Amino acid sequence: MHAITIPEPGGPEALVWAEVPDPEPAEGEVLVEVAATAVNRADILQRQGFYDPPPGASPYPGLECAGRITALGPGVSGWAEGDEVCALLGGGGYAEKVAVPAGQLLPVPEGLETVQAAALPEVTCTVWSNVFMISQLRPGETVLVHGGASGIGTMAIQLAKAVGAKVAVTAGGPEKLERCAQLGADVLIDYREQDFVAEVKAATDGAGAEVILDIMGAKYLERNVQALAVNGRLAVIGLQGGAKGELNLGALLGKRAAVTATSLRARPLAEKAAIVAAVREHVWPLVGSGQVKPVIDRTMPMAEAGAAQRVLEDGGHIGKVLLTP
Amino acid sequence: MHAITIPEPGGPEALVWAEVPDPEPAEGEVLVEVAATAVNRADILQRQGFYDPPPGASPYPGLECAGRITALGPGVSGWAEGDEVCALLGGGGYAEKVAVPAGQLLPVPEGLETVQAAALPEVTCTVWSNVFMISQLRPGETVLVHGGASGIGTMAIQLAKAVGAKVAVTAGGPEKLERCAQLGADVLIDYREQDFVAEVKAATDGAGAEVILDIMGAKYLERNVQALAVNGRLAVIGLQGGAKGELNLGALLGKRAAVTATSLRARPLAEKAAIVAAVREHVWPLVGSGQVKPVIDRTMPMAEAGAAQRVLEDGGHIGKVLLTP
Repeated sequence: MHAITIPEPGGPEALVWAEVPDPEPAEGEVLVEVAATAVNRADILQRQGFYDPPPGASPYPGLECAGRITALGPGVSGWAEGDEVCALLGGGGYAEKVAVPAGQLLPVPEGLETVQAAALPEVTCTVWSNVFMISQLRPGETVLVHGGASGIGTMAIQLAKAVGAKVAVTAGGPEKLERCAQLGADVLIDYREQDFVAEVKAATDGAGAEVILDIMGAKYLERNVQALAVNGRLAVIGLQGGAKGELNLGALLGKRAAVTATSLRARPLAEKAAIVAAVREHVWPLVGSGQVKPVIDRTMPMAEAGAAQRVLEDGGHIGKVLLTP
Repeated sequence: MHAITIPEPGGPEALVWAEVPDPEPAEGEVLVEVAATAVNRADILQRQGFYDPPPGASPYPGLECAGRITALGPGVSGWAEGDEVCALLGGGGYAEKVAVPAGQLLPVPEGLETVQAAALPEVTCTVWSNVFMISQLRPGETVLVHGGASGIGTMAIQLAKAVGAKVAVTAGGPEKLERCAQLGADVLIDYREQDFVAEVKAATDGAGAEVILDIMGAKYLERNVQALAVNGRLAVIGLQGGAKGELNLGALLGKRAAVTATSLRARPLAEKAAIVAAVREHVWPLVGSGQVKPVIDRTMPMAEAGAAQRVLEDGGHIGKVLLTP
């Protein structure tokens, strides 16, 4: 088969579409013929040499895919050859075929093309595990979503609205904020021109946000704590603004608040399977009914993965960038 | 009645035993004739002018008491005059009488003198709410308790052992550590001579502690994060080492870990009542059976509250310092 390989870490040109051996499904895995994968920031870090795949994962980038099951490894039940699926991956989505632990498979939701479903696994699992399983967002609470126009952001807006929360978002510029509004966001904050702490407080009678989903890390840490409500929960899932920041524990204590930081890729298989099962139970019905939709910026050929990653790096996209072999 | 008043904030001499008006039990409150109160660090901060009582609380210090109910306010059920009780207070324990919201009352456990029960409300509610309700310590996990010989520490050791956890403690010097060992602590760390990160890792095959109960705040923040296990939870309940510290979100994310910070006093009545109810359900049977005991350093006259607070400030005590009127 073909896959995107990284002979030497570097810029977008480091990604090489090359002939490689076919993967074999191990015990508990299925083989998926990939119809599409999607670009995640972790793929860019991996290309740059900053984010090695976890032990046992495919060496090729790609944390999610959609496609058709073409073979079952030993000990797999509940799935059959020919099933149209999407999947959370530890790696290897940028390829024509990938071996997937069965616990990370999801059926293609009703009403979606298989290719579209490649936009769902990472964002639904990340948002569900952080905003709902960890941070326990409840109806009537306010969630602040940083990067509201990103793949994660567009899904977080929709899921938070679906459970009856109030949604504030930050994004850069009116076009992205307008798209966030279309998806249901209630409070639109242009981080280039507005102070998100002041805007969130103004929109909540001074109370702040009960939950914040953050991708900036250190750069936003102090202001995120300021923007939290009493009993607030800050969930950090990205470090685009650095890793080490000052935490005011006095402010946190005054609010009885929590800071959590997680990633999906490094979780053990059992935890990934538990998250995927929760997504299937809670999110899939919303996608099946059309209440929650994948937001796809564009679809590009997988051989042009470097150009696709540049789209994410330039930051002009709204939603997910897909790759098809 | 008499109470400890604070005419002007300052040192221990600022505490004045004076004649003051009797409190009246409001709707939902009972009047308790105080047999004993206990000294908490928050009382010292209040004496120094750094920690005003929350709105509606008594102006006198004292966050817990034991005694006898002498009157019921309107709308109180489930309690009767003459009941021997202990209670979590928003303030006012350093007095001969105090009005207490009924949701913050606990019966004096079987087998204890009423005075002894004054050692229980703050430590049981703080430990149960942080280590169990928030941080969800589970059997087989390791908890690191900083200040293992303090009132909080001695209770945390006993409760963590009671649920089947492994307990590591820090304390200053062999006498305090020996007392922690008697209470069940498995890993004894003299913070004056040992690095708690290295000791906790050595005691857990390199894994670290799943839960850390911290009273130092900023000073220990970086090392606490280092000492956490994957999926670890750091619960900060004191800021004796400062409020603002550097948080390595990258390390936190790599461990999928959480930092929480809480205090008990500022919580709304309903949250206090929920914690007290959980303590009555889960902790009181352990106290009643003798498996968990109050650890009392000494009992002093309430009029000598300044000297008693100095005992805490000097740090030589083990367990709680009680005051009797």
